[in-house]
Amino acid sequence: MMNNELPSKLLESAVSEFARLPGVGRKTALRLVLHMLRQPEADVNRFGNSIIELRSKVNFCKVCRNISDNEVCDICNDRNRDNSLIMVVEDIRDVIAVESTMQFKGLYHVLGGILSPLDGIGPTQLNIEDLSERAILEDTAEIILALSTTMEGDTTSYYLYKKLESTGINVSSIARGVSIGGELEYADELTLGRSIVNRTPYSENKHH
Amino acid sequence: MMNNELPSKLLESAVSEFARLPGVGRKTALRLVLHMLRQPEADVNRFGNSIIELRSKVNFCKVCRNISDNEVCDICNDRNRDNSLIMVVEDIRDVIAVESTMQFKGLYHVLGGILSPLDGIGPTQLNIEDLSERAILEDTAEIILALSTTMEGDTTSYYLYKKLESTGINVSSIARGVSIGGELEYADELTLGRSIVNRTPYSENKHH
Repeated sequence: MMNNELPSKLLESAVSEFARLPGVGRKTALRLVLHMLRQPEADVNRFGNSIIELRSKVNFCKVCRNISDNEVCDICNDRNRDNSLIMVVEDIRDVIAVESTMQFKGLYHVLGGILSPLDGIGPTQLNIEDLSERAILEDTAEIILALSTTMEGDTTSYYLYKKLESTGINVSSIARGVSIGGELEYADELTLGRSIVNRTPYSENKHH
Repeated sequence: MMNNELPSKLLESAVSEFARLPGVGRKTALRLVLHMLRQPEADVNRFGNSIIELRSKVNFCKVCRNISDNEVCDICNDRNRDNSLIMVVEDIRDVIAVESTMQFKGLYHVLGGILSPLDGIGPTQLNIEDLSERAILEDTAEIILALSTTMEGDTTSYYLYKKLESTGINVSSIARGVSIGGELEYADELTLGRSIVNRTPYSENKHH
């Protein structure tokens, strides 16, 4: 056994897999795997199968592209929500964050990521194409851009604004109460809630 | 969808499973699960099955109780190692840490944990009973205690010292170059290596 080589191929294989998770190094991976080894076999099977099953059966709402067990998600199906408003977010974590503010009763449009040329993520990798089609079809009054205030988030907002300009639909972005450089999902509920209420027309923002 | 409830049962189930990992909260669990969802299905299957397979097939060396794919591990099987020395460690991570110092050429005895009454871990939960039997049988000259310098580690060392006293085998502990309160696996290689070279007879230590 040399240096950090593990004495078991099965162990090595499990540790390598865990170490591929974002933010998990080899030492942490080994600690997690050793923890799992001390759990009952049924628990470990349930853990492993839960992610396999999710990956093979996951479904995205055909309207907003949020993760959903049904063809159309509960939010898009909710008659009490204001379908004249569409909030554009990066992923499901942002939907959860905004829902918890109780400040938004419209619908969502989940991009599934943000534009990031360095990571090879362009418009075609995201759920961007059907946004304008959907908005025109649903006679949307306003599209609220609620992307993170990072460079990638700002770039994506600007790209969407330019793309939506010809539709004549009002495009706004949530107020910069969300701290600059911060990721949307980590904002506190009060700040995030207020930033939705105080949203400003996109064209009045100073960042472009 | 209320507060932090997820809009999919499959997603909820996978997130709950990930959130049971030590040091992983619900937000991190969701981030990890969403990351997995973006990976190819084959990769996710390999991840899930690697831990299931390890848990069902894992084998412990019948001599030192280290994790091993064979009945007896490569270290115990290595004729070039000094079998008159046995180093007692908590788990496989400590074996890896000590091996990487290149300062120890004896054998190991892996306890599989340390005494921790608060967590319900007593001597019978650990691989303690066969240590003295093994040492007598193998005509061991010295047993080196290399447990973490935490309260639980110190308690376990003292318990082992008392248990081994009647065998007449020399019991030493690695020098306290490892910082007090620190966990063995996080020590730098130089400090850990020196603490093995400078080990002192257990009875001369000031902590009991």
